[in-house]
Amino acid sequence: MADRKLRIGMLGYGTVGSGAYRMLVDNQASIQAKTGTHIEVVRIGIKDSTKPRDLSADIFTTDLDSIVNDPDIDTVVELIGGTDPACRLVETALVNGKNVVTANKEMMAKHGSRLVHLAKAKRLDLHYEAAVGGGIPLIQPLKHQLAGNDVLKMMGILNGTTNYILTEMQQEGADFAEVLAEAQAKGYAEADPTNDVDGFDTMYKISVLASIAFGRQVSISDVYREGIRRISRTDMKYADMLGYTIKLLGICEPVADRVRVRVHPTFLSKTHPLASVNGVYNGLWINGDFVGDVMFSGRGAGSDPTASAVVGDLIDVARNTAIGGPGSALPYDADMPTESIDSLKSRYYIRLRSYDRPLVLGKIATAMGEHGVSIAAMEMKTLILHEQGEIVFLTDYARESDFANAVKSLTDEVGVISVESTIRVEA
Amino acid sequence: MADRKLRIGMLGYGTVGSGAYRMLVDNQASIQAKTGTHIEVVRIGIKDSTKPRDLSADIFTTDLDSIVNDPDIDTVVELIGGTDPACRLVETALVNGKNVVTANKEMMAKHGSRLVHLAKAKRLDLHYEAAVGGGIPLIQPLKHQLAGNDVLKMMGILNGTTNYILTEMQQEGADFAEVLAEAQAKGYAEADPTNDVDGFDTMYKISVLASIAFGRQVSISDVYREGIRRISRTDMKYADMLGYTIKLLGICEPVADRVRVRVHPTFLSKTHPLASVNGVYNGLWINGDFVGDVMFSGRGAGSDPTASAVVGDLIDVARNTAIGGPGSALPYDADMPTESIDSLKSRYYIRLRSYDRPLVLGKIATAMGEHGVSIAAMEMKTLILHEQGEIVFLTDYARESDFANAVKSLTDEVGVISVESTIRVEA
Repeated sequence: MADRKLRIGMLGYGTVGSGAYRMLVDNQASIQAKTGTHIEVVRIGIKDSTKPRDLSADIFTTDLDSIVNDPDIDTVVELIGGTDPACRLVETALVNGKNVVTANKEMMAKHGSRLVHLAKAKRLDLHYEAAVGGGIPLIQPLKHQLAGNDVLKMMGILNGTTNYILTEMQQEGADFAEVLAEAQAKGYAEADPTNDVDGFDTMYKISVLASIAFGRQVSISDVYREGIRRISRTDMKYADMLGYTIKLLGICEPVADRVRVRVHPTFLSKTHPLASVNGVYNGLWINGDFVGDVMFSGRGAGSDPTASAVVGDLIDVARNTAIGGPGSALPYDADMPTESIDSLKSRYYIRLRSYDRPLVLGKIATAMGEHGVSIAAMEMKTLILHEQGEIVFLTDYARESDFANAVKSLTDEVGVISVESTIRVEA
Repeated sequence: MADRKLRIGMLGYGTVGSGAYRMLVDNQASIQAKTGTHIEVVRIGIKDSTKPRDLSADIFTTDLDSIVNDPDIDTVVELIGGTDPACRLVETALVNGKNVVTANKEMMAKHGSRLVHLAKAKRLDLHYEAAVGGGIPLIQPLKHQLAGNDVLKMMGILNGTTNYILTEMQQEGADFAEVLAEAQAKGYAEADPTNDVDGFDTMYKISVLASIAFGRQVSISDVYREGIRRISRTDMKYADMLGYTIKLLGICEPVADRVRVRVHPTFLSKTHPLASVNGVYNGLWINGDFVGDVMFSGRGAGSDPTASAVVGDLIDVARNTAIGGPGSALPYDADMPTESIDSLKSRYYIRLRSYDRPLVLGKIATAMGEHGVSIAAMEMKTLILHEQGEIVFLTDYARESDFANAVKSLTDEVGVISVESTIRVEA
């Protein structure tokens, strides 16, 4: 039983790769007890062989193709990220009959349907739990335990860097640029932070989740995406006063037989379970027609948590190999029909600067009302701060396109100097 | 593809059974799209054929054995609960080559190892996601995505009835008996509430989780169990003042090569993610050596959420059957070595009535100190309410057996009239 081996070829040896290697060594006894298999990394492909590394040099190669073509390797773990050459290498590995475990959200968001179909056709495993939510089990529970549900809504905090920045802004009353610089100094944010702060990373991840939940691949070009650069500490302060926090959410929801997928900063009610997911933590909230609401949270990035997901996938590969299983790739088709954000009905937070005139609020309400947008007077949440020339309020539910037109109508004529900020609201 | 059928024989048609039946019908199209299989309940075994039911009479039978012996039934869903006749029927079904899905925590806690070994030997599926945490995916994520971790600690709110009662006590300032009566009137608690309020239900569930996490079955006779009957609104009030809430937790933790499993009311810091799991919701917090802390929450009971877990398991059976897989039962052995609660090192909350004498606190501290228990003076959390003759404090970490002896020493001699309450603390 204990003599069985699963020989792993690893592509990439950065944060996640070195974590996964260490986990397989540190926890070898318990993993072997659970699988009857010794999972051993036998070859690691890297780009730069001159970097100092903590393993003996002869395990490394810069010839990545040699790994996916090596007949002595059973399973390939792809951790280089991006689509090129990752996608080509993964395809070659599958064609060569190797199971694949990957943490690559961009590749899965762009080419998931094709890769999973290929794995299925070859009766192989293709697992990608680490691609979304780091160590938090999200993808497999959605594929399996929650699969009987029609998903009614899914919202996730899926990027640790932006959640760290927003949490710091909220707790320290600091501005975006300030916290970003600090996060970069600490290594929590990249020198070029675009992928995180402009919402690309969240877009890839919510697309992958939506594709699983709705059974067809959502094209990332159909995802509405807005980052957090324009969020100010002033917005944070008002959010807090109104009973909200601001989070960058990936959201998907069915609209008839289509699905709408969007990524944007959100005024999230403090009573929502995602509101207390702070710092580098990630969280996913799913509402299904039978299960009701389910919530998952934990460490969404980092060496050890992401390694946990990679090794969990490898354990499944080892078990499946041991019982001679035919692979458990669950294919989904391409081209999920999508709905644009224009038809969204949402509430909105709006902050504007106005002339200090007694009738200005009435004029603003009238101007917005002409576009079908009313101020949420019922809740008396309107804040008028004439001393700062600032007016802040939440709207009732309005159509996105109506709201956009209503905002355009807030000109000098109705007493508005400038619209400083608009943010969608989730209760 | 769509012509494939999975014929289900269901044992029991109560809350969960009728929910699962409805889910399979309501979501048939999407389930069929995901599995390529029509999952159809063809026979339902019940005890009392005279009860009015919402399905045509010819699907029902009172001959439960006929279902597990019916060659036209592929998979048995066991929802009758308890061990007799459930265990015998499940064994017969497995022997007859039928996959089994069950929601039966008591049966799995008592006979899980034997049943899973039998399923494995027969190359069948035996799934029991619904046995713990209702609709929340817990068992499979622990078996799979988190399997690479050595679990360092696991704490769960696993019983909705007691969590509802404790939440009401906290929010309404009501006493246990009062809230229990109200919960019984609403149907949230049974006429005989022993199984819930004395912690049996939580004991079964944490035992099942511990058996999976540590790979061997924990005997329920080794589980320390204490219910919530003695929790008063006074304790709730002090908990709140000290920054805690009181929850009935199932806790398991490794102690060298053993595991300690316990169920008891707990002073839980308000900052812990489980502290905000309120009402009928359940939650599980897992700390693994690589993943760090992961948290799951959602509806832990009820017709629809539990049906979600049952149907999720059936979907896995359908997929596995479709690909001709050899079954995915993950066996674990019996007889996990366990550690008693006596060696636990914990902090404790203690509430006592004392004579109103200036030196009483010093005497109490001295008496407890002689048994190795010190008052957590560092945190200045000691409340002395002489006007009520009541003293409340938290101890520093102390050994359970030392604490028990220290409590015994709090007699009239040191100025203590009575020890009203002691509760273990988790930060």
